[in-house]
Amino acid sequence: MKLLLFLSILIISQIHSDELMTQSQAIFKAIPSSYKALNDLIDNPNNRLSKDKLKLGKMLFFEPRISKSGLISCATCHNLSLGGVDGLSTAVGHKWTKNPHHINSPTVYNAVLHKMQFWDGRSKDLEDQAKGPIEAGPEMAAPKELVVKRLKSMPEYVALFKKAFPKKPSIDFTNTANAIAAFERTLVTPSKFDDYLRGDDSALNKQEKLGLKKFMAKGCASCHNGVGIGGSMKQLFPIVKPYKYAHIGDFNDGKPGMVKVPGLRNIALTGPYFHNGAVWSLKEAVFIMGETQLGTTLSKEDVSDIVVFLKSLTGDMPKITLPKLPRYTNMTPKPEL
Amino acid sequence: MKLLLFLSILIISQIHSDELMTQSQAIFKAIPSSYKALNDLIDNPNNRLSKDKLKLGKMLFFEPRISKSGLISCATCHNLSLGGVDGLSTAVGHKWTKNPHHINSPTVYNAVLHKMQFWDGRSKDLEDQAKGPIEAGPEMAAPKELVVKRLKSMPEYVALFKKAFPKKPSIDFTNTANAIAAFERTLVTPSKFDDYLRGDDSALNKQEKLGLKKFMAKGCASCHNGVGIGGSMKQLFPIVKPYKYAHIGDFNDGKPGMVKVPGLRNIALTGPYFHNGAVWSLKEAVFIMGETQLGTTLSKEDVSDIVVFLKSLTGDMPKITLPKLPRYTNMTPKPEL
Repeated sequence: MKLLLFLSILIISQIHSDELMTQSQAIFKAIPSSYKALNDLIDNPNNRLSKDKLKLGKMLFFEPRISKSGLISCATCHNLSLGGVDGLSTAVGHKWTKNPHHINSPTVYNAVLHKMQFWDGRSKDLEDQAKGPIEAGPEMAAPKELVVKRLKSMPEYVALFKKAFPKKPSIDFTNTANAIAAFERTLVTPSKFDDYLRGDDSALNKQEKLGLKKFMAKGCASCHNGVGIGGSMKQLFPIVKPYKYAHIGDFNDGKPGMVKVPGLRNIALTGPYFHNGAVWSLKEAVFIMGETQLGTTLSKEDVSDIVVFLKSLTGDMPKITLPKLPRYTNMTPKPEL
Repeated sequence: MKLLLFLSILIISQIHSDELMTQSQAIFKAIPSSYKALNDLIDNPNNRLSKDKLKLGKMLFFEPRISKSGLISCATCHNLSLGGVDGLSTAVGHKWTKNPHHINSPTVYNAVLHKMQFWDGRSKDLEDQAKGPIEAGPEMAAPKELVVKRLKSMPEYVALFKKAFPKKPSIDFTNTANAIAAFERTLVTPSKFDDYLRGDDSALNKQEKLGLKKFMAKGCASCHNGVGIGGSMKQLFPIVKPYKYAHIGDFNDGKPGMVKVPGLRNIALTGPYFHNGAVWSLKEAVFIMGETQLGTTLSKEDVSDIVVFLKSLTGDMPKITLPKLPRYTNMTPKPEL
């Protein structure tokens, strides 16, 4: 692994500055600007997008009654006004329970561009991922059966599920997750870096380009690459030097473990950083990555330039209108606080 | 009080069915359809609405960082997708604390039309009301100073407050509440009953008109009247017969006390009902009101007709686009979970 990193740093260091765009295009990939290409990118053949499914999925994303308490929705921790995160170090869920592994809520924006979901990468796609937090005791704490019973009790949901999933059974736990995942698939945020990757040289200014160059030259792009600028692999964390905040919690009792490489789109919005949310400053996060993952001590200038580049990954958020959710009926299981 | 109720029932009972609209217009008031008249109705001379203030107010309504934890916003309990309520019997706030008085979260929709705020009516307007839950320990639990420090730490808020409140100091706790209240003033939901009150006889169907007639004839409209269909006075609760759910909690240790008469706009959406959220069925709530407040046992048919009328009070919700909230800075006080 170290040899690979070393080689990629060596290769990337050789880039001439006039080749910056060509090299960037080889390492990263733009979010397509055409509807067709974007649709191909975010599509899941096993969960085709449709207007009805997206309407239902948005409702369910904002639906607190798929949690045991009736108070927590996907949007609680994946706050779409706050870059798709909660802004807390550790996720907090049902009965104010902090995540027992001290895990930070990752953003839902652009998660569709990742090859794996969750900080330990255990889930292959959003359809699979969406089931986890609903059932997890420290998150929404709702057994499958309760979720389905709640949804089946409201005629508006029954009708919408029928439209979105014409094959029977239309309302079940899997289709609930499928509808939510369909909505999440649309949460992509193209940025000026995508304009640059599509050939607009003026999209990035001088310092952003310098930061981009350093991001590749220092080796950051060895892991944070592709259309998600990350999200495609797991890596040992830390590799080279200890991560000084490991005692806050990780996947391996404070010892190094494999952690999903997060996508860096909107990284300027989605702090605090790392799987345990221990670091609030983006500059400090970049510096730590240099030390722990690349075995290099980045200068203040390098860190500043890289952070300026990272800010160019802040994208245009989709305009989201709040859905209107149906009223409970006398068949709806009550909130369980 | 009993005599007053008796007299009003007597008077209202005399209405001929062809006079239904005239009588309704004397007792209730439509939400105006013209922009000018609506603006006059929702305006507060001490907190004039402006585009900047409304933009800021919407952001602050959805802003979890004005709570101590950074996790709870006004929108958490006043869920604009759920009729402006949380759908729980008892409000739940900071550290999963249930309201110690077992009080139910009232809706923010149309609260501007009320003459008092909170279930005990202690607040005269939304500007005053908005301060309460932010500071209250079992709700958002944020000291004034923390709220102001958090907001001052984010340059986007500093700029917006300056625009919304040009007089210094622009960012303070009062102006935070003023901006939120300004946004809430716009949350009115005209319904087909307003069309009817404005003279469109076809806006209500036969059963809705029958329900309206009974609503007035039985005495409900003695308290639930005006433009808020309630919200203009406090009443002893219960008056005539005990409220069988009083043990769940009220303002007076289970003994009758003065409770704000809630506005009934969107009542079909805002269950569970009563100040302690003890009743989930709107029919049961209507039946109980007959017994406890009017000393009358409403027949099943009466209850059904009145409920059909009440459903005509479900209004058109304003279309609300989620705001984008600024990122914290290194000056922002951290969430306190």
